[in-house]
Amino acid sequence: MSGSGSDGLFGALFDRGAAGTGDQAWLQAMLDTEAALARAVERAGLAPAGSGTAVTAVARAVFFDNGALGRHAAMTGNPVPALVRALTELLPAEADGAARAVHRGATSQDIIDTAAMLIASRALDATLADLSAAAGGAAALARDHAETVMAGRTLLQQAVPVTFGLVAAGWLTAIDEARQDLHRIRSSRLAVQFGGAAGTLASLGDAGPTVAALLAEELGLADPVLPWHTNRHRIVELAAALTGTCAALGKIARDVTLLAQNEIAEVHEGAADSGTGQRGGSSTMPHKQNPVAAIVILGCTKRTPGLFATLAAAAEQEHQRAAGAWHAEWETLSDLLRLTASAATWSTDLLTHLRPDPQRMRANLDATGGLPLAEHVAAMLARSMGRLAAYDLVAQAAARAVASGIALPDALLADKESAAKLAEAGISQAQLQAAIRPEGYLGATGEFVHRALSAHAACDAALAS
Amino acid sequence: MSGSGSDGLFGALFDRGAAGTGDQAWLQAMLDTEAALARAVERAGLAPAGSGTAVTAVARAVFFDNGALGRHAAMTGNPVPALVRALTELLPAEADGAARAVHRGATSQDIIDTAAMLIASRALDATLADLSAAAGGAAALARDHAETVMAGRTLLQQAVPVTFGLVAAGWLTAIDEARQDLHRIRSSRLAVQFGGAAGTLASLGDAGPTVAALLAEELGLADPVLPWHTNRHRIVELAAALTGTCAALGKIARDVTLLAQNEIAEVHEGAADSGTGQRGGSSTMPHKQNPVAAIVILGCTKRTPGLFATLAAAAEQEHQRAAGAWHAEWETLSDLLRLTASAATWSTDLLTHLRPDPQRMRANLDATGGLPLAEHVAAMLARSMGRLAAYDLVAQAAARAVASGIALPDALLADKESAAKLAEAGISQAQLQAAIRPEGYLGATGEFVHRALSAHAACDAALAS
Amino acid sequence: MSGSGSDGLFGALFDRGAAGTGDQAWLQAMLDTEAALARAVERAGLAPAGSGTAVTAVARAVFFDNGALGRHAAMTGNPVPALVRALTELLPAEADGAARAVHRGATSQDIIDTAAMLIASRALDATLADLSAAAGGAAALARDHAETVMAGRTLLQQAVPVTFGLVAAGWLTAIDEARQDLHRIRSSRLAVQFGGAAGTLASLGDAGPTVAALLAEELGLADPVLPWHTNRHRIVELAAALTGTCAALGKIARDVTLLAQNEIAEVHEGAADSGTGQRGGSSTMPHKQNPVAAIVILGCTKRTPGLFATLAAAAEQEHQRAAGAWHAEWETLSDLLRLTASAATWSTDLLTHLRPDPQRMRANLDATGGLPLAEHVAAMLARSMGRLAAYDLVAQAAARAVASGIALPDALLADKESAAKLAEAGISQAQLQAAIRPEGYLGATGEFVHRALSAHAACDAALAS
Amino acid sequence: MSGSGSDGLFGALFDRGAAGTGDQAWLQAMLDTEAALARAVERAGLAPAGSGTAVTAVARAVFFDNGALGRHAAMTGNPVPALVRALTELLPAEADGAARAVHRGATSQDIIDTAAMLIASRALDATLADLSAAAGGAAALARDHAETVMAGRTLLQQAVPVTFGLVAAGWLTAIDEARQDLHRIRSSRLAVQFGGAAGTLASLGDAGPTVAALLAEELGLADPVLPWHTNRHRIVELAAALTGTCAALGKIARDVTLLAQNEIAEVHEGAADSGTGQRGGSSTMPHKQNPVAAIVILGCTKRTPGLFATLAAAAEQEHQRAAGAWHAEWETLSDLLRLTASAATWSTDLLTHLRPDPQRMRANLDATGGLPLAEHVAAMLARSMGRLAAYDLVAQAAARAVASGIALPDALLADKESAAKLAEAGISQAQLQAAIRPEGYLGATGEFVHRALSAHAACDAALAS
Repeated sequence: MSGSGSDGLFGALFDRGAAGTGDQAWLQAMLDTEAALARAVERAGLAPAGSGTAVTAVARAVFFDNGALGRHAAMTGNPVPALVRALTELLPAEADGAARAVHRGATSQDIIDTAAMLIASRALDATLADLSAAAGGAAALARDHAETVMAGRTLLQQAVPVTFGLVAAGWLTAIDEARQDLHRIRSSRLAVQFGGAAGTLASLGDAGPTVAALLAEELGLADPVLPWHTNRHRIVELAAALTGTCAALGKIARDVTLLAQNEIAEVHEGAADSGTGQRGGSSTMPHKQNPVAAIVILGCTKRTPGLFATLAAAAEQEHQRAAGAWHAEWETLSDLLRLTASAATWSTDLLTHLRPDPQRMRANLDATGGLPLAEHVAAMLARSMGRLAAYDLVAQAAARAVASGIALPDALLADKESAAKLAEAGISQAQLQAAIRPEGYLGATGEFVHRALSAHAACDAALAS
Repeated sequence: MSGSGSDGLFGALFDRGAAGTGDQAWLQAMLDTEAALARAVERAGLAPAGSGTAVTAVARAVFFDNGALGRHAAMTGNPVPALVRALTELLPAEADGAARAVHRGATSQDIIDTAAMLIASRALDATLADLSAAAGGAAALARDHAETVMAGRTLLQQAVPVTFGLVAAGWLTAIDEARQDLHRIRSSRLAVQFGGAAGTLASLGDAGPTVAALLAEELGLADPVLPWHTNRHRIVELAAALTGTCAALGKIARDVTLLAQNEIAEVHEGAADSGTGQRGGSSTMPHKQNPVAAIVILGCTKRTPGLFATLAAAAEQEHQRAAGAWHAEWETLSDLLRLTASAATWSTDLLTHLRPDPQRMRANLDATGGLPLAEHVAAMLARSMGRLAAYDLVAQAAARAVASGIALPDALLADKESAAKLAEAGISQAQLQAAIRPEGYLGATGEFVHRALSAHAACDAALAS
Repeated sequence: MSGSGSDGLFGALFDRGAAGTGDQAWLQAMLDTEAALARAVERAGLAPAGSGTAVTAVARAVFFDNGALGRHAAMTGNPVPALVRALTELLPAEADGAARAVHRGATSQDIIDTAAMLIASRALDATLADLSAAAGGAAALARDHAETVMAGRTLLQQAVPVTFGLVAAGWLTAIDEARQDLHRIRSSRLAVQFGGAAGTLASLGDAGPTVAALLAEELGLADPVLPWHTNRHRIVELAAALTGTCAALGKIARDVTLLAQNEIAEVHEGAADSGTGQRGGSSTMPHKQNPVAAIVILGCTKRTPGLFATLAAAAEQEHQRAAGAWHAEWETLSDLLRLTASAATWSTDLLTHLRPDPQRMRANLDATGGLPLAEHVAAMLARSMGRLAAYDLVAQAAARAVASGIALPDALLADKESAAKLAEAGISQAQLQAAIRPEGYLGATGEFVHRALSAHAACDAALAS
Repeated sequence: MSGSGSDGLFGALFDRGAAGTGDQAWLQAMLDTEAALARAVERAGLAPAGSGTAVTAVARAVFFDNGALGRHAAMTGNPVPALVRALTELLPAEADGAARAVHRGATSQDIIDTAAMLIASRALDATLADLSAAAGGAAALARDHAETVMAGRTLLQQAVPVTFGLVAAGWLTAIDEARQDLHRIRSSRLAVQFGGAAGTLASLGDAGPTVAALLAEELGLADPVLPWHTNRHRIVELAAALTGTCAALGKIARDVTLLAQNEIAEVHEGAADSGTGQRGGSSTMPHKQNPVAAIVILGCTKRTPGLFATLAAAAEQEHQRAAGAWHAEWETLSDLLRLTASAATWSTDLLTHLRPDPQRMRANLDATGGLPLAEHVAAMLARSMGRLAAYDLVAQAAARAVASGIALPDALLADKESAAKLAEAGISQAQLQAAIRPEGYLGATGEFVHRALSAHAACDAALAS
């Protein structure tokens, strides 16, 4: 249904995850729903024994012609009426009563919405598996580089020192938050849709809720309080969890593209694939080593806010079935599932092969002559002269350091006023030099990395249970 | 900060809830954060006794000049540096050590993000209170009209009968789902931001996490695993819950505008306010009684998907502080909180005063000559002639009924073939007439209403605890 | 590339127009670009005679394996490098120099962006043709129903009388505005992309601009001032024109769904297709006649604002080629072109077969007992008693009319005060009755219809030239 | 109406342009519309001489109480009915007939929509003036740095050389395209709204179109073919032009943040304001020099795609006046105008004070040892060995150069195979060294800069006329 399919022109980029959102997956999910309904109807005593088995036997996508179903969809606004007829016709003549079980009690929207939930549950399983691997990669980076000092950067300017382990811990925490949210949706918010024409299940008499519960059981989905034909809260929640996941992955990919710049070069993408070494090449520039995984992740994640907006706006649905707003959901939700799954797969690739360069990290930090430690120096001076005055004094020294291309301590010592203030504060030159050593100004960095790893272990445990 | 303020030109429409997202509310929330930080710093033993009290005493919005702070913001990109200076200057000379507690360990983003969380927590409290009242209104409608028959409508066409109680139960369930999601966010996802310049709390040495925990305690917010300067998952989650709430309210308002059409007239907005009777008037048409509450709700809710998209796209934040993406959040989140709160207040008004018209509901259903019961008739025939053949037979009769302006039973009986099929099936004219009585074709409607009311009671209990 | 293809499960709904945005269309458009470039290179004297012909001969999508190209795309982030190699390998051994013409001077983005422009130009041509037919349908309705009185409706309430011709004229004007905007884009904003690796065309020495101009000529696209690798203004403009078109079509479809409600029934969708009469059926309700065309149009148009937002946000592109933002455009633009084209095709169907029901229009207007003429009555009274006092008097009468179920004139005459005011104003009962005749209160309606038709003729003439 | 006002807490950031979209501006624009209508009504002979003057005299925002108007808006859904009453009451007793001219023929939407157009026209004028200055700044940079060589960067990796002049020319072209689009909207698409209750101008009898034309003349806006109450194409077009403008400005700001990174440091923001030198400071880090203008621009521009999406989705408006969709436009359009104006003002600041560092540009390019010239070397080799084989040979050498930290020529000469190929091609070491001189590989760069400047002059001329 969406994208060119995983084997199409752009499929390896935007449909790399095993999302299963193509035409065949949709058709099979609708057939799975119809088959499960027939089994539920039989179990409820509303159709002869064997009806469920008979319907299930023929409910296989390969027996159907997508194109023909699609053409009929133009008459009714969706492919289900034609699907029901085709499915019924496939039943063997001897399975006479089985036909009565087909689509029993259902409306088109019941089939399409439940199919969407099945597709979502499968895509979320695949995505959660990929995110688990990606989180594992981030956790390894956080652990291995807990003491690898680098420049923290705010507003794209060097700020104070951090460690690459802390950076990776931040990525890890974001992925874990996304996993927990997706897992919550997967386990509690994906529900069957079964309400019949207008949500009353009238054609089943008293048996409606029983059949609904059996259908939910057959499909491993929740049985909701009410049919949700025009209460799209669970679609919005699902879409939000997907969008939040992409937000987390997009942030990581953005960082990687920035850290991989030639002039920074603190990380490089590793080759996930065989030793061909070609990844990242250009069609014309032989020297290029582009961070392809990060780029493609961004190519996926940047599309999700707009797709979410479509689904959220489409949640304003009229009466008992919406005229258009519901239809706008089908491909949009597919795209959202597909792009999130693809971004997750690429992120696993990215995070399990990323190669940080600790030497370069240190060199970049050293190149700014102690400026990122200006805060530290100001804090030392603040004790004797007050926070704001110390700030101003160091700010002026920093400006002189930049202008003259000298290091911050030199700029402080070369100036009469600031040298005097240092003396007043009892700060020796050696202490000043020590103050601009990044290792000495990491604060809670180690504890934060530890916390993130502990939370990650707890997340793994919670999601495994 | 956003909108014209609740007392502005459009404030009664789009800022009717007590969201508290204006300039003064932002300023006070930032001051509350600075004051709480000073108290936390004191409690951690990093500032003299009394520092917290001294800072708290002067941290009142009325002491500050928004305009002046705003002008300084143009130099630094945010108002915090100027605020810190102004706050420090307000400290009495004798509270000497207190100055050292001001902004200690913090960066501008710590103050703004934590202030945003405070604003969100207050706005969510107000919104949850309004939604509780709105849900109460919907529950009363569901209960009172559990047997009020009306036409279910799909794709804006009469489908099969429902009850107005079921319609209201659907509204109720949607509001309750929104409440649970908002409550989840309110109670577990609003957290302090406190990481210092680049998320290491370096300027506090070892004491960072202790101060962070105390700050969280002072403010009644969660203490997160890590500073979340560029992990905006909780912003996205908050925004999603707000957008989901508006989706639920927008659907209700859409239904009301449709049901209130002159030609349908099944509900009317009641006057929330005194008996002036003016609400709904036009500037030029004396007869107009517009459904103002529903209209304004839609005017609020239709804006939230786009605002969410902005926040989700802005979650792709660079390194340790984003250049622009963070700044794009401030007013956007304010608007989202404000519009959701306003929509919730209007919804309370709408749902506690809505006046359904059961006579008109019945009349509209009767006017279509039994067509909404065509499914029922087809189901009766299906037992003898098969589902699809019965469907086709009744469809042709329905078409004839529409074309000739006669009732469905008459159309069936007037045709030789269909009359014969009725006879074969042993369906008498009396049985046919009974089949088109809506009361006899409501299926699980009653049970569904009951379920929604039970779930509502459980929701009330859960949120009260 | 996008959607399930016009012959897929949902293709007849969302890919009904001849947009040509699938995988094969993209592949061919890229090959067309490469072939045109080879011809341009030859014409510029940079490759041997015959090179262009040789490349063109093999640049046919059927010779290529989309799946294989797609897999290579995972190495480089786009399918062009693999395409260039495959294209070069297809050249016959004897066409030795031709290989040198392949991809000469170009970068991957040149090929993909130019292909996107070709796809857009073809999709716009198809869409403009459909919109011309749709406008023709609207014009016919405007002309034929210039005097068909119906209720104007504001805020979904009956307001004052209009004619159906005026309603259709409004639709017509909106379509014509959309056509003019699309035409402007089609004729002046679709341009080749040709800048080489970083927009300097360095590998062509001095010949770059010459080749660019020849390439533009070969493809019938504009030659831009500069390569626009990271200046996406023309993508945003194209997307805006498509979104604006969908806004116009969505409004029309919304009106049709509202006017087709059973209780209003002022229009019905006609059968575009053969006399099967099935369109609009439900999978379970035999009587349903859903307005399928309008519904599917809304299913398309509701998706475009979110897609536009993605493209606009993606326009923030770094340096000389964007990392991810560019990649986010490909499928998104395809979807936007496809959905707009599909909505346009469905709109032609809708507007050329729509069946208005003048009797029902009149009946609905009459059913409200003169209320929509309250403004007229107030205006008559205003001459003697002032605008605001007259408004209030009639408003009170209207409220009494609604409450008692009587007509407005009766409510006015039955009340002492208002009867006296009518007498003062010299308004007789006959004049009052005449005042509530809708035909007498149409103001500029006729002139407006005439204006819209004149503007339409001018639009047709301008676009034909 | 939107934002905190230019003198609020965030006003200097997000409301720096003279957009004029606050409450007072809205109130005055509505009063300007009512006053112009009174004058038009008088000119049409429908009110006594002097009516227009009388109404105009009292139509001043200072005479009105925004809060009171706002409270009444809650009764009617908009502030116009209360405004009309208040305006009428302000008329002096002797100006008896003037009251009849007030709001004559109009509906609330006429006043609000026309006021929105007035606000838009004023905001566009301010924005166009700022953009003219910003374009001037970009043009100066393009001219002054036409030969300043720097690294072109694609996918955030060094690609081939460009000049800073070309980069600035790209910015210039984007701004100029935005200006032309805004100018087109300003001069031809901003139109009065005047249709009365349902677009028929019925209360004016035959005089409607005459009054409409006079109203347009009074206000300097276009007189549209039809009232456009629910044809929002011109709102969408306006919003698209604003969004496109922000796309252009956001790209420039993104480039500046990237070029200003410490490790790249090719540009610095200059101080627009007095020599305080404080701009860019942090609340805690004394050394910080953040690119505040670029950051705030991004803080504005990132919000516009979502706002556009809201307006485009809201264009699906029902019948003759929309229930909610119209109301959703008011603040959204204000925000869009305000943020675009603010971004434009900041861009003027940014581009007229930007300080490029040619030495650093050259140093960054040299630091990659000729890699950005790999394409050039490959092109030289291609003549003898074919394009693809040459590409592969140089790609391998580039990989070795990166791995060993040596320059590209050395990597080529140190390898037997590639040395042999160079010899075969007759490329000497000196030629190889010459090939990696960036000045020799700039292609059409100079011509492109020239073209952009010529187009800019033409744009200036066109917009001045």
